[in-house]
Amino acid sequence: MENHNHEAKTNQNYLCNSLPQVLVLEPPPVFKFHGDQLSKRFHFLKAWESPLPLHQYLTIHSQSVQALLSSGRNPITSEIIQLLPSLGIIVTPSAGLNHIDLQECRRRQISIVTAGTLYSEDVADLAVGLLIDVFRKISTADRYVRHGLWASQPDYQFPLGSKLGGKQVGIVGLGSIGLNVAKRLEAFGCNILYNSRQKRPSIPYPYYSDVCDLAAHCDVLIICCGLTDETRHMINKEVLLALGKKGVIINVGRGPIIDEKEMVECLVQGEIAGAGLDVFENEPCVPKELVQLDNVVLSPHKAVHSEETLMALCDLVVGNFEAFFSKKPLLTPLVDY
Amino acid sequence: MENHNHEAKTNQNYLCNSLPQVLVLEPPPVFKFHGDQLSKRFHFLKAWESPLPLHQYLTIHSQSVQALLSSGRNPITSEIIQLLPSLGIIVTPSAGLNHIDLQECRRRQISIVTAGTLYSEDVADLAVGLLIDVFRKISTADRYVRHGLWASQPDYQFPLGSKLGGKQVGIVGLGSIGLNVAKRLEAFGCNILYNSRQKRPSIPYPYYSDVCDLAAHCDVLIICCGLTDETRHMINKEVLLALGKKGVIINVGRGPIIDEKEMVECLVQGEIAGAGLDVFENEPCVPKELVQLDNVVLSPHKAVHSEETLMALCDLVVGNFEAFFSKKPLLTPLVDY
Repeated sequence: MENHNHEAKTNQNYLCNSLPQVLVLEPPPVFKFHGDQLSKRFHFLKAWESPLPLHQYLTIHSQSVQALLSSGRNPITSEIIQLLPSLGIIVTPSAGLNHIDLQECRRRQISIVTAGTLYSEDVADLAVGLLIDVFRKISTADRYVRHGLWASQPDYQFPLGSKLGGKQVGIVGLGSIGLNVAKRLEAFGCNILYNSRQKRPSIPYPYYSDVCDLAAHCDVLIICCGLTDETRHMINKEVLLALGKKGVIINVGRGPIIDEKEMVECLVQGEIAGAGLDVFENEPCVPKELVQLDNVVLSPHKAVHSEETLMALCDLVVGNFEAFFSKKPLLTPLVDY
Repeated sequence: MENHNHEAKTNQNYLCNSLPQVLVLEPPPVFKFHGDQLSKRFHFLKAWESPLPLHQYLTIHSQSVQALLSSGRNPITSEIIQLLPSLGIIVTPSAGLNHIDLQECRRRQISIVTAGTLYSEDVADLAVGLLIDVFRKISTADRYVRHGLWASQPDYQFPLGSKLGGKQVGIVGLGSIGLNVAKRLEAFGCNILYNSRQKRPSIPYPYYSDVCDLAAHCDVLIICCGLTDETRHMINKEVLLALGKKGVIINVGRGPIIDEKEMVECLVQGEIAGAGLDVFENEPCVPKELVQLDNVVLSPHKAVHSEETLMALCDLVVGNFEAFFSKKPLLTPLVDY
């Protein structure tokens, strides 16, 4: 009861200072970097800081909460939504919506705002960076120089890399990220091919309905699609063998899209030539075999981490919540979800 | 005298097997990777393998040598050329000609073949790869994952990178390499500015005649020019301070174009934000301060190292020598040198 009173008092104090209230269940990354800025505009009810069970915490604030900022990861279930009868808007910093019970939101006509394509350019930049790194051995060369081997091994010939121009690059999932990757790699003289659920009529690149067929025609596969039941372990041993001994795989999608065990085996056995990976099946755990290999580049799931994009996300969060609270049209509402 | 006889005999043997003779003073990299292929077409007189002093070695072969393959580094002086009265062609695997006495070649009407722009795409690819790496901390992230820190430090927030799109990128030296860098970075949404000896009328990018003025207008400087008396230490402390605390420098030109001591000082003091370096002032020695920094990416002067380009170089060497020996027009002769 003491906790209960404390929560109610805190809430009361903030209502007095008239900042609009936003519920947060778990802190999203934008909080770590722009928490101060956000807190000047809104009073955040930080559920994760409360010692109360979530159900009890939500019950206390059930009447006042009109807005919710999702972490983009933890589920916003129908149970949570039903505990918040005044909820009118959910803003999620994710591009996807898998974590939100959309049926309940539809029924209640709750507005939803996502990050949309805000991250596409950052992810595409990293995909291209990983590809150049694997092809031209940049991280390996950096280790070589840092360990003092350049100066101490005058007769050693650093291994040759590969040229990007003229390579067949297969993009798996030609959404906003895939199109941004394609645009960048065309400037390097790469030829783009793609696989996606459906052929896109307006796209000039050759389409392969079968990902194994795509792999057989490619020097590089770049995984840019989302994780669904259909894409889980879509990149299996058959696809990797079709990609072949000179083939390189880049993953900026989600770890489980690749059968990681098979990929590691293929890399160790030389059945494929290299990999650039921002995502893994069991993050933050990375298969120990990969750490020993010079033909892979390992990145800790940070494809969307740039200062500029996180600032843009902060603006998107603030702009949409401010529009909501002042009863103006939202800046970027999700339509027909 | 024993050596002398041995040389003469070896020479005699090869003349019998009728392969055309090509003199090599020091082995170029193409020799390490395609020596077998080259040796099927030509008999190479390998001066560096002979115990004789160079002058004596050349005197022995003076009448027979019509063709010379340069290493691209060691000087082809007027003294060497004068010892080879039958010399009709020099092929150098370099883009530049600083190491060849052109006056003597002109006087003797010796044909010259260079690599021309063969390397431009490889160098541009590496320049962009180094830039993405510095901006998005790819090598640093790879070290972080390999050292097991991602899994062992769950609360650590890997530092944010920077977005490429919208950045002002100043290219110093807008030749073939610089133009290839510009083409690639435009696809990332960067804005290109440039400095070169003269404004190029057909180029749409803003021109800055003063490199310090260019730096003051840029987030990134990419050094793509050659090393001359004018460009030595052109990137001095004043230019680096104009680039500023958020500025990044990429060097795929030559080490001495930057005042390395000042650059290291600026990096250590945080006067510039980062650097991606393929070249250094005293290669293969790299300033020890750089090895300690996470905001630099270090590459062992390997901008032109791709399998495809070295194969193309091999074809260029073979094609031009074969044309020369069969008295056909050279494939890629240097005109008006």
